[in-house]
Formats: sequence, structure tokens, C-alpha cells
Amino acid sequence: MGSSSAAPWKQLLLNSIQANSHLKHYSYFQLATVAPNNTPSNRTVVFRGFQDESDRILINTDARSRKIDDLKHLPFSEICWYFTETWEQFRISGPVDVIDGTNPDPFKLQQREKSWFACSLRSRLQYMAPTPRLPSLSEQPSPIPSLDPSIGPVAAFCVLVLDPQQVDYLNLKSNERLIFTSELNDDREKLWTPEKVNP
Amino acid sequence: MGSSSAAPWKQLLLNSIQANSHLKHYSYFQLATVAPNNTPSNRTVVFRGFQDESDRILINTDARSRKIDDLKHLPFSEICWYFTETWEQFRISGPVDVIDGTNPDPFKLQQREKSWFACSLRSRLQYMAPTPRLPSLSEQPSPIPSLDPSIGPVAAFCVLVLDPQQVDYLNLKSNERLIFTSELNDDREKLWTPEKVNP
Repeated sequence: MGSSSAAPWKQLLLNSIQANSHLKHYSYFQLATVAPNNTPSNRTVVFRGFQDESDRILINTDARSRKIDDLKHLPFSEICWYFTETWEQFRISGPVDVIDGTNPDPFKLQQREKSWFACSLRSRLQYMAPTPRLPSLSEQPSPIPSLDPSIGPVAAFCVLVLDPQQVDYLNLKSNERLIFTSELNDDREKLWTPEKVNP
Repeated sequence: MGSSSAAPWKQLLLNSIQANSHLKHYSYFQLATVAPNNTPSNRTVVFRGFQDESDRILINTDARSRKIDDLKHLPFSEICWYFTETWEQFRISGPVDVIDGTNPDPFKLQQREKSWFACSLRSRLQYMAPTPRLPSLSEQPSPIPSLDPSIGPVAAFCVLVLDPQQVDYLNLKSNERLIFTSELNDDREKLWTPEKVNP
């Protein structure tokens, strides 16, 4: 199901991750969406790996954040991931699946549970914080809630799965650019075509 | 106008620029736009300063790049600027003015000329390179064209001016978030209102 043949850009991306992994921010990228009023939005999120052996990208987010409204309006996004050590940029675009606790698909709920337990306790606590973007009422930071490490995902925990359709790779050191486009074959497997283009 | 009273987020941003300026990538941010097919696009661009004393943000780009098509479709963008040293994020959104060589406004053409001469010779040469995104025909890098340092902007040189309407500031060290929203008063000056919100 698309995971049988590795996407040709995936090894390039794994190499970049490896070469930048000594930097705390190596896993941060910017996720662009279209808001319900049709304007663009953009924010930094954290790469949480690939789904199983596929090329689908996992992101954790708060179900109460505005990007969820954006993705309900238009379930499509472009990631811009710039690697500061190796001067490489990956622009990765495709449809995004939003998995919250109300999802009817047991396989997806299992992914959500797996993503939850892969988070540090500190990260999990963020999903118990007051609603993002509402006025901050207190001068003091909120008391840290306690969390049983064995309990599953809380209501606000949400997983995004971006299924890449196109990847635009730019290397600012070699000044090379490659665009990988995909199409589905009759078995609904993605077939990737790379093209070397002017930067 | 709008330059008479400084935007309250501008000093925060200048502080972040200062505190990160030892890093080559401090001036890189991601610019999100909406493509003519209504999907989001996202790419890294370089901060080229503020226009005069205002809070308007300058970006240089190639008139042949796809972001120009996006901005003609919807002249509005959100910048996401993450500072890796200080763990601060600025999301800056607003309308974008596209200034190319065909602009009828002499003041805007003057800005374009000023931006051109503020570029290094190396940067200026990029605008004489083969059209971005077209197939790269040669195995060898193109011969470097020669450029008289005294000649003005070439046709492909284009300046974007983003006029901030909203700024969403997040500090991941202090876990504080401030949203600055603007409205125009009767003199068409921007009035900014900051609000402390939950991160």
C-alpha cells in the first residue's frame, strides 16, 4: 500500500535528519494550511517520524488549535523543512488526515494511542493545559496537573498524518533542486518521478 | 503613515534578531501563500529589513517564481519565523504588495531600486539565472554571467512588502504567548492591541 516501494526522496530526507540531528531544532518544520476565511496560516510543528514503514509524516497537535479548523476547511498542507546545518530545504505537500479521539477507524485510533505513548510525559501534559489562544487569566503559570503515565490519550490529543504527493528538494550548497511528483498506479500505489530543475 | 508610532511587537522582533544574529540562518523565515488551485504553499525566504521606519517587512524574490502567481491570486501571506537560539516564534500575517519593474508607482520603483542595490553582487546574479523550476538541461552549472555593479534591477527582480496586520508571538522558554492585533484609526494609522493568551 505505497509502503512496498520506498519513496526516492525519503532517503534524502533521512540523510538530512541524520546530518542535522545534533541540533535541537532539526525536527522543527513549518506547516502551512488555509484558514476558513481562505487566508494562509503557518506555524512551527515537530516531526514525529513516519507512519510505520510508509512515507507518511506524523505530527502531534492539540485538537483545540486553529490548525484543526483549517484542516477541516481544507485537508491539505505544505511542510517547509529547512535544515540549518546542511542548507537543505524540503517542501512536502499532500492531504492531511486528522485523527482525534472521535475517529471511527480502529486502526487510526491505534495510531493515536501509539503516538501518545511515544510522547514524553512532559509533552503529554501540554494537552491538559488551558485552551490555546484563550486569554491568559492568571499571572502565575497554571499548577502542573498530575498525569498517570499509563493512561491513554486525553481528549485534546490529536495526530496529523500527511501523505506526501509532491516533494521539492533544494540544496543551497550544491545549488541543486529536485522535484519529486507522485501518481497512483492501478493498485493505488504511489509511483514517484524525480525531475532535476533550475533552483 | 503608520510609521509615526512604533508597533509594540517590533522591538520584541528586533531583540530576537539581535540575540540570534550570530547564526547564519537567523534571517530565514517561511512564507505561506495560497496557490491559484487554493492549496497552501510554503517556502523559506530571507528577511531584507523593514521599509524605512515602518513595520512593513521587505523580501526579495524572483518574478518568475510561483509565489508571484500565488500572490496575484491572493495578495496575503503568513510568515512563520522561528529563532533557534532563543526559542521564539513570530507569526506575522498581512497583505503583500508585489513590486516588479512594471509597477506604475514611482515611489515603489524607487524601493525596488534601493532593494536591488542593497543586495550583494552574488545575490543579484541569481536573477539572471535560468528560469526557476524549469527542467535543468545541463549537467554543468551555467556559466556565471557578468554583471555591471552600477546597472539597476533586472526584469526578474521583484520586491515583496508585507504589511503586518497581526503578530502572534510565542516564547518556548518562558511559555508565554502574546497576540498583537491591529486596526486602522480615522487617519488610517495602525493601532495595535496586545493580548496575553494561553500558549
